[in-house]
Amino acid sequence: MLRIQKPTLVVNLDRVKDNIDKMARKLQGKRVLFRPHFKTHQSAQIAKLFRDQGVTSCAVSSVEMAQYFAMHGWNDITIAFPANVLQAEEINNLAAEINLHILVDSEEQLKLLADRVQHRIGVFIEIDTGYYRSGILNEDIDTIQTLISAIGKYPQFVFKGFLSHTGNTYQEQGQDVVKLFESARRKMVQLRDFFSEKYPDIQVSMGDTPGASLAENMEGISEMRPGNFVFYDLMQYFIGSCSLNEIAVAVFCPVVAVYPERNTVVIYGGGVHLSKEKITHEGKEIYGFLTLPKAHGYGEIMEGAYIKSLSQEHGIVHLPKAKANQLKVGDVLAVLPVHSCMTVDLNKEFVSLQGEHISKFRTY
Amino acid sequence: MLRIQKPTLVVNLDRVKDNIDKMARKLQGKRVLFRPHFKTHQSAQIAKLFRDQGVTSCAVSSVEMAQYFAMHGWNDITIAFPANVLQAEEINNLAAEINLHILVDSEEQLKLLADRVQHRIGVFIEIDTGYYRSGILNEDIDTIQTLISAIGKYPQFVFKGFLSHTGNTYQEQGQDVVKLFESARRKMVQLRDFFSEKYPDIQVSMGDTPGASLAENMEGISEMRPGNFVFYDLMQYFIGSCSLNEIAVAVFCPVVAVYPERNTVVIYGGGVHLSKEKITHEGKEIYGFLTLPKAHGYGEIMEGAYIKSLSQEHGIVHLPKAKANQLKVGDVLAVLPVHSCMTVDLNKEFVSLQGEHISKFRTY
Repeated sequence: MLRIQKPTLVVNLDRVKDNIDKMARKLQGKRVLFRPHFKTHQSAQIAKLFRDQGVTSCAVSSVEMAQYFAMHGWNDITIAFPANVLQAEEINNLAAEINLHILVDSEEQLKLLADRVQHRIGVFIEIDTGYYRSGILNEDIDTIQTLISAIGKYPQFVFKGFLSHTGNTYQEQGQDVVKLFESARRKMVQLRDFFSEKYPDIQVSMGDTPGASLAENMEGISEMRPGNFVFYDLMQYFIGSCSLNEIAVAVFCPVVAVYPERNTVVIYGGGVHLSKEKITHEGKEIYGFLTLPKAHGYGEIMEGAYIKSLSQEHGIVHLPKAKANQLKVGDVLAVLPVHSCMTVDLNKEFVSLQGEHISKFRTY
Repeated sequence: MLRIQKPTLVVNLDRVKDNIDKMARKLQGKRVLFRPHFKTHQSAQIAKLFRDQGVTSCAVSSVEMAQYFAMHGWNDITIAFPANVLQAEEINNLAAEINLHILVDSEEQLKLLADRVQHRIGVFIEIDTGYYRSGILNEDIDTIQTLISAIGKYPQFVFKGFLSHTGNTYQEQGQDVVKLFESARRKMVQLRDFFSEKYPDIQVSMGDTPGASLAENMEGISEMRPGNFVFYDLMQYFIGSCSLNEIAVAVFCPVVAVYPERNTVVIYGGGVHLSKEKITHEGKEIYGFLTLPKAHGYGEIMEGAYIKSLSQEHGIVHLPKAKANQLKVGDVLAVLPVHSCMTVDLNKEFVSLQGEHISKFRTY
């Protein structure tokens, strides 16, 4: 049994391996390149588990994260975030060392980068198929054509294709995710077809976790970039992307106060450990589900128990009185997080169920 | 002008000094001890600015934070969080070095601590006056009496008094904050009076930022523990605790995409830099206000502009088309955060407007 003293991010490596294996086999079966997004785990040690499955490409969300994984032997990296022109020098230095791919969506951005980047870089045009976060709208053919032509004018830039993040799948559930992903896939493939005579090697890069988990039709997609699936979380559970038994991270938290009369216990584990991300389910705001840790696992979900609010360090757990009566200060509860990407980012390292410390990148 | 390349937590030290000075003078005028909560800034360098105002006591929210400030010369510290019995050894080691105060609210917790703590510790009983987070309800006189007696049985424990966090003020605005704080103050003073014959030295410790900023009647309060006021934030602005010109931290973020037709720009600055804390105002969810940084300040608030959603690294800013047209990729926007405690916790260090790096504690 792990010795827990304070909030600790505990990773279930067996589940991680299963999640990677399942996704790798699915994409292999569809002949789609697996380019996992490493912003979820941010760990060279966990990246190694992907390598064991034959994965050699990845996506990251910042220049610093690309530097970290490059340092750990990854040499085919896409920074799947709008290229930040204020870091052009750092981007150039990285491009000197590895096969780097970046995202652009305007000529101005391209020009500002070109002024300070000399090394060869793969350039994806970011396409927005309806998420309305970043990228050129897929129907805006003229702007896309102009940008492709502009890329062609710079010898250091190699036009790779179209990249999209269908993040709007997070608003849907089950078969509605599949429909939305399918609609986005069609838009991307149509766009590729439109330009394919002039540019026969255009790649189509997609990849949100709900779509990657639930959709079966991936025709025309060159690569998928899911990230969250490595751990999954409650948000994915409610979307329908995973079962509770596939969630592979939990924050182990000491119980610091017990109030059976109020159907409440307080845990040492707050917004700074879990993040303030919540889901609303059946009218209740939920910041996490609870389990009782077992010797080598997270244990069963405690029925009727959930975190109902979070302060900086306090987690307020609602639970049936009978369950509260069974707990005492000094016990440890495992919290399944709402959004594992955010929770993992807040913690300096992972501890495995066997007690191994697993290091990870910090943005700074 | 600061050179910004990526999301950077920028502190306005002049505003910090003004906020400290104003609160110190207010509490001094009311003869209430100023025991600021350092969980907001978590920085020995910023703590020094309190020391310059004659402050020698502080509150923190974890054992590790107490260790950090003890190391930096603070020797009168209250860990204003339910004492975590799993860290009894660390608590004992700290008590050997400084005047340490802890919070308990059950005999079981007290007993588990007593088994492993030998050094003298000040013990506050945590009282709940209606926030329903942690503590014994103020009307539960019997439980309180039993706990005071239990404390008296252990020679290492010194009963100090009653401590409460009136966090429910965060749900009110303006004069309603004052009413709620006044009601909590009365409950605490009544409780003290009830026990004062037997225990004449009972202290009353209170101190949320809205109450400390807005309430005038502090009769019977021994010490106040506000924390957030050192930086304030949008939440406090909407509560009515501060003006926008008193907010003393902002996250400077590069613009990475501009979409005037969609009334949107995208900044490099997401949930991992700002936290996912939001406020709902006039039906809109707001994750931050924007200003255009000036040479030595944050500049004026951009009218009609606010962060409407956050991904891990993306901030999506809604703003009028005319304003979007004036921005280009590579510009920098300063974001006034919704909840400065959470935002500051996410960042490794501060940078002052003059470019000085100001270090801070990390939970790990």
